[in-house]
Amino acid sequence: MISVEEALARILAEITPLNAMQVPLSEACGLVLAQDIVAQEDIPPFANSAMDGFALLSHDSQPQHGQPSRLRITGGVAAGYVADHAVEEGTTMRIMTGAPLPPGADSVIQVELTRSEGPDSEWVEILEAVPPGNNIRPAGEDMRRGQTVLRQGSEVGPWEIGVLATLGWPTIPVIQQPHVAILGTGDEVIDVDEPLRPGKIRNSNSYLLEAAVRQAGAVPHRLGVAHDTVESLREKFTEAVRYNLIITSGGVSVGDFDLVKNIMAEQGQINFWRINMRPGKPVAFGHIGGVPLLGLPGNPVSAAVTFELFGRPVIRKMMGHTRLVRPQVDVIVEDGVSDRAMRRHYVRARVEWRDGHFVAHTTGNQGSNIMTSLLNANALVIVPEGGVEVRPGDTAKAMMLDWPEE
Amino acid sequence: MISVEEALARILAEITPLNAMQVPLSEACGLVLAQDIVAQEDIPPFANSAMDGFALLSHDSQPQHGQPSRLRITGGVAAGYVADHAVEEGTTMRIMTGAPLPPGADSVIQVELTRSEGPDSEWVEILEAVPPGNNIRPAGEDMRRGQTVLRQGSEVGPWEIGVLATLGWPTIPVIQQPHVAILGTGDEVIDVDEPLRPGKIRNSNSYLLEAAVRQAGAVPHRLGVAHDTVESLREKFTEAVRYNLIITSGGVSVGDFDLVKNIMAEQGQINFWRINMRPGKPVAFGHIGGVPLLGLPGNPVSAAVTFELFGRPVIRKMMGHTRLVRPQVDVIVEDGVSDRAMRRHYVRARVEWRDGHFVAHTTGNQGSNIMTSLLNANALVIVPEGGVEVRPGDTAKAMMLDWPEE
Repeated sequence: MISVEEALARILAEITPLNAMQVPLSEACGLVLAQDIVAQEDIPPFANSAMDGFALLSHDSQPQHGQPSRLRITGGVAAGYVADHAVEEGTTMRIMTGAPLPPGADSVIQVELTRSEGPDSEWVEILEAVPPGNNIRPAGEDMRRGQTVLRQGSEVGPWEIGVLATLGWPTIPVIQQPHVAILGTGDEVIDVDEPLRPGKIRNSNSYLLEAAVRQAGAVPHRLGVAHDTVESLREKFTEAVRYNLIITSGGVSVGDFDLVKNIMAEQGQINFWRINMRPGKPVAFGHIGGVPLLGLPGNPVSAAVTFELFGRPVIRKMMGHTRLVRPQVDVIVEDGVSDRAMRRHYVRARVEWRDGHFVAHTTGNQGSNIMTSLLNANALVIVPEGGVEVRPGDTAKAMMLDWPEE
Repeated sequence: MISVEEALARILAEITPLNAMQVPLSEACGLVLAQDIVAQEDIPPFANSAMDGFALLSHDSQPQHGQPSRLRITGGVAAGYVADHAVEEGTTMRIMTGAPLPPGADSVIQVELTRSEGPDSEWVEILEAVPPGNNIRPAGEDMRRGQTVLRQGSEVGPWEIGVLATLGWPTIPVIQQPHVAILGTGDEVIDVDEPLRPGKIRNSNSYLLEAAVRQAGAVPHRLGVAHDTVESLREKFTEAVRYNLIITSGGVSVGDFDLVKNIMAEQGQINFWRINMRPGKPVAFGHIGGVPLLGLPGNPVSAAVTFELFGRPVIRKMMGHTRLVRPQVDVIVEDGVSDRAMRRHYVRARVEWRDGHFVAHTTGNQGSNIMTSLLNANALVIVPEGGVEVRPGDTAKAMMLDWPEE
C-alpha cells in the first residue's frame, strides 16, 4: 500500500498543463491566465472628478476681502464628454463624478461647499478654499501603462474579468479547459432510466463524476459503460483517447475480473495501486495512447472520494493552476467517529462555522457501500492512519469541499 | 441612509422562488430540489456480498471433528449476474464483491480464510467458522423504499447526483434557473473592444456582472449599454423585461442625470436608496413590468461589492435556496485598515487559513475608484459603521467569497 500523498505526487508528476489559447472575455471566468497581463494604458485614462461639483483654479477658491470667491460658470462637463473650452481665472465649470477635468482647472470643489441659484445659475460662490488636486483622480491612479496587473497562473474570476474589460482585453490568453472522458465499467451497471433487474445496479458513477468534473472546471464527456468484453472495452478506449484525460470507474480492484486491467495494460502503461485510505483503496493511473488515465474504484462512495483526492488536482494542474489541493481547516467533530480504521479514513461530514470555530457532524454510517453518507456533506474529516480514535468533541483536520451559505 | 441589512430585507421580501421544472439529471447540479426525493426501491435492491469469497450456509463453516469443513464448489456468481441454482448443505459458490447472494446461502467467507486448489478447484476448505449474515450487505441497508432521501430546498451537488442516479431519477424536479438581464447605462461607457476616446471608459460592469451572475447560479444575458436618451433606455427596458431579473449599473446615484431614474420610475415602481456602506452607497430596487430590478452603482468597485451583498442573495432566493448570504468568519487583519470610514466599510482582502485561524491581507488602496483593489480578493473584511479603527493584528468579521486551494 502507498500513502495518499505518494499516490498524488506520482500522478501529478505525470501531468502537465494544457496549451494556451485565446478565449472571449465572457468565457474566461474560472480559467487560468497563460501570460501576465500588462496594462497598455493608464487607468483612469484621464484625470477626472471624484465628486459632483465645480472645476476651478484652486487659487480662485480663496476668499476675496473676507467674502466667498464668486466665479462665473462657463459650462459643464458630464461623464463621457470633454469640455469644449478651458477654465480660466475667475471662471468655473460644473463637473460630474467621473467626468474629465477641463483644461486649465487644477481642482474640484464639491457642490455642497458652494452656493448658486440652481442649475441655470451663471454664478457660483465658493464657500471654502481648496488645494490643488482636490477631488481629482489623476490619470493612472488605478493602473499605470506598463504595469503588470495580473500574473500568469492566476485564476480569472468575475472581478478580474472587470479589470480585463477596463483594460480593453476582448479576448484573454488562458490555459485550455480540459475535456475529460468518463467511462464506467461492469456488466452489473445499467443506465439510470432502466428498471432494476436482478443483480444489476444503476450507473451512478458516470453522472456523479460528470458533475464533479464540471465543478472542478473541466468539460465532461460521458461515454457510457463498457461491458466486460474485450471488444466493448477496446471500443470505449478508442473513443476515450480523443480527450485530454480519461477517468474510469470500476475494474481496478484486486478482486475484479482482470479484463479491464488487461485491456488497460494492453493499450498503454497503467499502474495499479492499493492506497492506504478508506474508502477507496484501489486506484489505477497511467497513460493510454498518450492520454492520462485515472482509474477509480467502482464503488460510488470510493469513486466520489478518490475523485476529490486525485481527479480534481489532476484537472486543476491541467488547467494551469498551481494550488491544487482543497483547503484544510481544523474542526471540532461534535459526534466523533465511532468506527475505527487502520487505513486513513476520510469521513464524510457537514462542517459549519459557529462561535469562532468550525464544527463538524458526520453524515451517519460511514460504510463504503452507504451512498447516503455522501448526502449534504461539504467536508471530509481526516482520521489519521492506525486506528486513531476521534471522540465526540475532539479536533481533527477536515478537507473542505464547499462552504455553506448562512 | 438605510443599513445593508434593512436594504437586503426589503429587497428579499419582494422576491419569490421561480417555478419548478424537470431537468435531465446531468443538468441538475447546482440547482435546488423542488420536492422531497423518496426512494422507490430498496438500495441495494438485493442482499449482496461485501467481499470476494464463498457463499455458504453458516453452519457449514463449523469444523468437523477438529478438521476444517470441506465444501463442494457448485459454481460462481459475479457482480451483475444471479446464481442459476441454490447453495445447499455441503456446497458453496464463489462470489464476487457486490454480487447477489445466491438462494440458500446465509453467509459469505472471504477468500483469505479459505484454501482451495485455484480457480478451477471443485472443493474448498473453510478455515474459520462464520456467523449468519457475515460479509452480507442486506437489501435496503443504504436506502429503504419509502424513505425520504433528500429534502425539498436542498442543493443538488455531484454527490447528490450520484444518489439520484442510483435511485433511477433520469429527470429531477428543481426550481428553474433564473435568467438575468444585465444592462449598463451611461454615455461615457464604450465596449471592451473599442479604443479609448477622450472622456470614455470601457464597459467593465456588464462583463463583471455576467461572470458573477453565472457564478451565483443563474444565466446572464448581457444587453449592452443604454445611452442617456429616453429612446435608448425604453428600448433596453422593453428587452430586459423578458427575463426573470434585471440588473442595471449606473444611473442611480444622487449626482447622476435623472434620466435613468425617470425612465425607471416611468416604467415601474422603483425605490432609490442611500445605503450606509462603502463602497457602493446608491442602490435602486423595485419592479418594471412585474420583473424585479436591482440598480447597482456605476462605479465598478461599488457594482462588484453591491452585487455580492444584494444581487447574489436575490438570485439564490429565486433559485429556491433558503440560505442566501455568504458565510462570515473571524479573521486576523494582518495589515489593518488604514483609512477609516463612517459608513460600514467592505474592505477587499485575501484570506487564508494559517496555524489554526484565518488571516487577512487587504488588497491595497481601498478607494472606490481603485479597481485593482478587486484583484485576487476572496473576502470582504467588514469594518463596522462609525469610523472604527482596525489596527494590524486586530480581529474582524469577513464575508468569504471564495476559499483558496492550498
